[in-house]
Amino acid sequence: MPQNNTSIYIYGRKPVLETLENEANRIEKIFVRNSLHDSQLSKIFELASQYRIPISHVPGSKLFDLVGKVNDQGIVALMSKIQYEDFGEWLDSIDLTDYPAILLLDQIQDPGNLGAILRTAAASGISAALLPKHGQAPVNAATYKASAGTAGRIPIVRVGNLNQTLISLKEEGFWIGGLDMGGEQKLWDLKVDRPLAFVIGNEGNGISKKTLEHCDYRFRIPMENRVESLNASVSAALLCYEWKRKIDS
Amino acid sequence: MPQNNTSIYIYGRKPVLETLENEANRIEKIFVRNSLHDSQLSKIFELASQYRIPISHVPGSKLFDLVGKVNDQGIVALMSKIQYEDFGEWLDSIDLTDYPAILLLDQIQDPGNLGAILRTAAASGISAALLPKHGQAPVNAATYKASAGTAGRIPIVRVGNLNQTLISLKEEGFWIGGLDMGGEQKLWDLKVDRPLAFVIGNEGNGISKKTLEHCDYRFRIPMENRVESLNASVSAALLCYEWKRKIDS
Repeated sequence: MPQNNTSIYIYGRKPVLETLENEANRIEKIFVRNSLHDSQLSKIFELASQYRIPISHVPGSKLFDLVGKVNDQGIVALMSKIQYEDFGEWLDSIDLTDYPAILLLDQIQDPGNLGAILRTAAASGISAALLPKHGQAPVNAATYKASAGTAGRIPIVRVGNLNQTLISLKEEGFWIGGLDMGGEQKLWDLKVDRPLAFVIGNEGNGISKKTLEHCDYRFRIPMENRVESLNASVSAALLCYEWKRKIDS
Repeated sequence: MPQNNTSIYIYGRKPVLETLENEANRIEKIFVRNSLHDSQLSKIFELASQYRIPISHVPGSKLFDLVGKVNDQGIVALMSKIQYEDFGEWLDSIDLTDYPAILLLDQIQDPGNLGAILRTAAASGISAALLPKHGQAPVNAATYKASAGTAGRIPIVRVGNLNQTLISLKEEGFWIGGLDMGGEQKLWDLKVDRPLAFVIGNEGNGISKKTLEHCDYRFRIPMENRVESLNASVSAALLCYEWKRKIDS
């Protein structure tokens, strides 16, 4: 059962089309700029009709009111409220004997990074993304677009206190791994023989010191040319796919 | 010898500080907002003094004139001109017996993606990034910031025609690899026993059809949850680090 609800708009042809194809029941209404006569929209109109989603033809200024100054490509969709899951209920629902892996995001600031991380997490088969309620970029229209319509393909769980959550996860049998420049193991040394929770650090500061102390494993990504860190969504992707690679082999 | 020159500004405390620490000789001048009294800048002032880089205290509007409406954090630095390398001279200078790997970017549109790709390429030990002269995001201040000051750590080579470049690279002994949903091999099957050139596709369309035909290998990244593609900088990172992982082991 959702713990918290927020209305969101998505915009752009590709995100709207992909959502129609995969989660049409999450779209409540579509707004199209009334000056737009584009044959590229015919697939969207066809699917909207099939799923009985109302379409409003509106002036461009109305789209601006909905999503602000973005490249909306003349099309905006109102999504049903995001289904944030409750931590306790989510934890009860998962099967730990499958050795799932989950992500914990430690205050990611940029919606573009958050969207890319949710997209990669879904693509790699990660079971859920846990987000702190405060100090974190929201799952809004910009996040949704950056995820290319894939945010929500895996459960998004909001948690109050990240460190308390880590303690609860450990009690359930999760091992906690984090990426850190000073990590004692290379990322390639990751083992996938138990449920794993990966902490993804904030763009500017990485994983906070307190949180790092909760990590059972600290991995480093080897780097050349005096580069000291990578983009947060890149680090997360290398971690997610290291896990997938091992799980698949 | 540089083939083409463009002045760029970088902005934000971390990019300016990192550049001062690593490539101070590329900074010509630093502009600081005159309302700014921040002890976090002391390290920057110290290094600028050490390297005899002039600092101007200016109104915020002057910074706006230099870099536009961005989060400049009150600090902008004028960089010396970017050293784009000439393809022929770069090719003469590399040692193919080392089995280098290079990236060819197929019209990346977003400066944030371009910066993240250049950062990951440098971190993974890729030898050079080749960029088409046209239809490509420029290596400008936004790109530099997104790279966290690491753009330029490896040669940036501009080329006229990407497909012609691929033919020249093949003649020199490079094998060409590209990422594609329909690729016949998994990324994990990459072999690193020869010089490799990796093509990174455009955000919207991937690698163009013509260019894909030049690829000796087409790799797919396995994906779950009906996700069909990843962010361009994420795909590039998985490729770069698959190569590094194999080279290091």
